[in-house]
Amino acid sequence: MSELRKLLEANKRYARAFKYAGLPITPARKLAVITCQDSRLSVENLLGLSTGDAHIIRNAGAQVTEDVIRSLIISHELVGTQEFLVIGHTGCGMLAFKDHELQSKLWKKYRHSAGGMAFHAFEDLEENLKEQVKKIESSPFLKGIPVSALVYDVKTGRLRKVV
Amino acid sequence: MSELRKLLEANKRYARAFKYAGLPITPARKLAVITCQDSRLSVENLLGLSTGDAHIIRNAGAQVTEDVIRSLIISHELVGTQEFLVIGHTGCGMLAFKDHELQSKLWKKYRHSAGGMAFHAFEDLEENLKEQVKKIESSPFLKGIPVSALVYDVKTGRLRKVV
Repeated sequence: MSELRKLLEANKRYARAFKYAGLPITPARKLAVITCQDSRLSVENLLGLSTGDAHIIRNAGAQVTEDVIRSLIISHELVGTQEFLVIGHTGCGMLAFKDHELQSKLWKKYRHSAGGMAFHAFEDLEENLKEQVKKIESSPFLKGIPVSALVYDVKTGRLRKVV
Repeated sequence: MSELRKLLEANKRYARAFKYAGLPITPARKLAVITCQDSRLSVENLLGLSTGDAHIIRNAGAQVTEDVIRSLIISHELVGTQEFLVIGHTGCGMLAFKDHELQSKLWKKYRHSAGGMAFHAFEDLEENLKEQVKKIESSPFLKGIPVSALVYDVKTGRLRKVV
């Protein structure tokens, strides 16, 4: 696995110049960002965040799943974040397929049913983002925490506010 | 929400120097990284990754939940990643509480039961990491994909291989 060797070599260089030994566990800006796993989103860079500034939660499509609610409760309740930001993006892979198409692909490839799995593909980026914000706001354990939603444009690097 | 205004200002500066308009959706290094939401982990920096190189999935504790399996299937099947890396870290907040303690705290604060929620607190970082790798390897839809596990030391910036 030569990719791993390259990553470990790069990490050695990172560690030689390491200056974050004193950072506390609490994010300095008391912010949690929920966004997509997409490789084109360098989250800290595009938001001007430094190491230690914010919790960052990422999955396929910036979907507020049960796991994201779990992560946000831990973030807020135990580590002290006070504000959430959900960021979707243009060109998201989740706009390019339907759940049943992926389920069918998996069945043909593995002869194992993924019929019970929700993949959370969606058709409208902004509508979907608004739904994700509602999911956070409707958790009984995340009441009153400000939540904003933004769209990141992968062709321009710009953020645009939606909620 | 002045924090949001600051983030948007920083993003304007990012967009002015933007040079990634031509990046494809497929991560250049065909890699997906699963790690923790902790603010001290600047994932791209500590691995020497550039924008466009890898999918990054993050949640509380780098736990391979149903949502992470969903995200990895989408990553591999639809976007073409071929190798996974799970990174836990020293000083993880998940080592500092027990699920029942957080459930009890939430009950006292909100008078709403979180008894049915698994928060996935753990006691042994390396053992937990090995369990997460096994969860990926046991998915019928992620067979044969190489998975490594590393521990990141938040006091030194160094990565150490576990699996």
